[in-house]
Amino acid sequence: MGTNKKVAILGSTGSVGCNTLRVIESMPEEFKVTALAAGSSIQLLTKQILKFQPEIVSVATESAASELQKSLKTAGVSRLPEICTGTTGLVQVATHPGVHIVVSAIVGSLGFVPTYRALELGRRVALANKETLVMAGELMTRAAKQSGAEILPVDSEHNAIHQCLRGERRDEVKRIILTASGGPFRTLARDEFEKITVDAALKHPTWKMGQKITIDSATLMNKGLEVIEAGWLFGFRPDEVDVLIHPQSTVHSMVEMIDGSIIAQLGVTDMRHPIQYALTYPDRCVSPLPPLDLTQLRTLEFFEPDNERFPCLGLAYQAMQAGGMLPAVMSAANEVAVEAFIGGAISFTSVFSVISETMAAYENRPVTEIEEILSADQWSRNTARRQVGMRTCDAAISR
Amino acid sequence: MGTNKKVAILGSTGSVGCNTLRVIESMPEEFKVTALAAGSSIQLLTKQILKFQPEIVSVATESAASELQKSLKTAGVSRLPEICTGTTGLVQVATHPGVHIVVSAIVGSLGFVPTYRALELGRRVALANKETLVMAGELMTRAAKQSGAEILPVDSEHNAIHQCLRGERRDEVKRIILTASGGPFRTLARDEFEKITVDAALKHPTWKMGQKITIDSATLMNKGLEVIEAGWLFGFRPDEVDVLIHPQSTVHSMVEMIDGSIIAQLGVTDMRHPIQYALTYPDRCVSPLPPLDLTQLRTLEFFEPDNERFPCLGLAYQAMQAGGMLPAVMSAANEVAVEAFIGGAISFTSVFSVISETMAAYENRPVTEIEEILSADQWSRNTARRQVGMRTCDAAISR
Repeated sequence: MGTNKKVAILGSTGSVGCNTLRVIESMPEEFKVTALAAGSSIQLLTKQILKFQPEIVSVATESAASELQKSLKTAGVSRLPEICTGTTGLVQVATHPGVHIVVSAIVGSLGFVPTYRALELGRRVALANKETLVMAGELMTRAAKQSGAEILPVDSEHNAIHQCLRGERRDEVKRIILTASGGPFRTLARDEFEKITVDAALKHPTWKMGQKITIDSATLMNKGLEVIEAGWLFGFRPDEVDVLIHPQSTVHSMVEMIDGSIIAQLGVTDMRHPIQYALTYPDRCVSPLPPLDLTQLRTLEFFEPDNERFPCLGLAYQAMQAGGMLPAVMSAANEVAVEAFIGGAISFTSVFSVISETMAAYENRPVTEIEEILSADQWSRNTARRQVGMRTCDAAISR
Repeated sequence: MGTNKKVAILGSTGSVGCNTLRVIESMPEEFKVTALAAGSSIQLLTKQILKFQPEIVSVATESAASELQKSLKTAGVSRLPEICTGTTGLVQVATHPGVHIVVSAIVGSLGFVPTYRALELGRRVALANKETLVMAGELMTRAAKQSGAEILPVDSEHNAIHQCLRGERRDEVKRIILTASGGPFRTLARDEFEKITVDAALKHPTWKMGQKITIDSATLMNKGLEVIEAGWLFGFRPDEVDVLIHPQSTVHSMVEMIDGSIIAQLGVTDMRHPIQYALTYPDRCVSPLPPLDLTQLRTLEFFEPDNERFPCLGLAYQAMQAGGMLPAVMSAANEVAVEAFIGGAISFTSVFSVISETMAAYENRPVTEIEEILSADQWSRNTARRQVGMRTCDAAISR
């Protein structure tokens, strides 16, 4: 360590982005932030630029860029960073010269292309964007293999699996067990699901995260995406990846070996832990966070997931089994459905039906190129939006 | 694998010995039993000889040897194995030519010398005899280092730690956390301890084991011995080895890394698991045992140990901190006290006082040679027996 590695962050104003900056702030000898990409949170981005002085930044739009320029001048920044915009800007940040580690923390399919470009350049990717591997696990892992890039998972579950697999041989691992908090509706009766409000769905019991992933946790689609992600990251088939509901979120995940031994990783629920691990691997560094106190916790529980109340998990297994473009189609439809639910357009249970109808309407094909995935993604969004529209009309009529 | 490694078992008719033979029976391609040592369970030993056809066996005494000879003739064994006796016999079994792995599963200090000789010869020792490292950890680990011998722990806790440390760097490990079932008196009120019967103490809630170790589990001295053992096996100071009561015995132990991450090993409570691991390491092999079902288990609990009700644990930390011969003195006094308790001579709480008085009377010295350890062991036994005698008289008078 102590090499002052250069870091680019895609999604610096989001939850993972901010936590990454806190980790880096606590290890100034180890890392230097040289590139940041954000959406439209200009005020926060301005503060980050003042503090970390990156060489390049990217924002969503031209208007956000001029707003940022004004904001930086007002703040008295003498030497402005290079400012770029849109998808091109994201790629510029991810491929900025001299960068060693790209933290991919943009939610949804937007992070896909810049992450791919970083992997092509052989850069370590600290991956918090699970949609990337769900959409194009084959292309991503192939690019990483060809360039020698490492993908270090930031998701606490996959980060835990990564830790459990240290020193183990792949052919001696029987299965992966991803734990899930179960979300806020873990114990809710089935007939109450139709009435779930957005506010209730946004209250995650154990983790503080962005809106989209919090809703995904409430539907268990988040765990479904993680099942597919785990398959790509570690090379496991659908029948080798299991899910267990574990309300305390203390066991972050486990692996079962062929000899019956289970190796588990436990920790406090703070994203700075997996982020630090992904940045410093193969080293471990002292964390400033208070350690887990098992005696304070006392009880750990484990349950089988209920596929009837949480059918999205089953959709993910179905997509993983089918392979090809279907996982990308599922993920895109999920983004549209979750956005519609948050916007009040559809009910909580309609999230599942929008995704499943969209998947049913898709004629699956093998993955060949990025462009094809992006067009399947587009097709899925359009189809899902029509499904949302139908449900919105239904809702209006039934009122 | 598939090399047909030759195995010697010290203590073949005990709990670990029998389980070792069951493991080997399930992997006939991998291992061949060539040497067995037992005490006086001649009937069982005869069966083992008939089944595994070792080249050499050893029993406790000359009379046991002639009994075995008769028993083998009655059973119609055509070619008798070489039969030897006593401490010399144990060493002959441990050093028998061609043996690759010595399973050291004789309880107490008796296993000490043969285990040491096996390590000197560079043989892998699958160590179930924890007294060996408690008595002479320095000599044992030095002998192993010089000859290149591996010590693979069979105790489920240390076996778990061994698994958790795979792929980890020693300087990145903050501490070891040994779990303890808490024994049958985990929740017993303090004023009830004086009345504890031998039968009650022999009922372990989660593990089936020999008598001595079962009583040690009830007093928590077993965990104390394990703390010292862990220190030698993995190179940790007393303040780096902690104990947590975990009544379900499912998490077999844990390690905490400097970054706050905890790695745990879980499994069913069957000694065949750690035995198989110790035999097959660095490979893992498919186990015929049913795997752990976490959803059947549901709840895992963790508590701080209560040093007031279980003061033996504190004695072990004290001995480990002092170092030198004191751990050997403690372990020998414990053997005498436990035997006296099982024989009805002293009460459960007197086990602690016999050990602590013996330790208090000892003038500590550094460890130099085996002979000195053996004489400290003898001194401790004599002193502890006097302590037992005093208590037996007290008990007789107070009746």
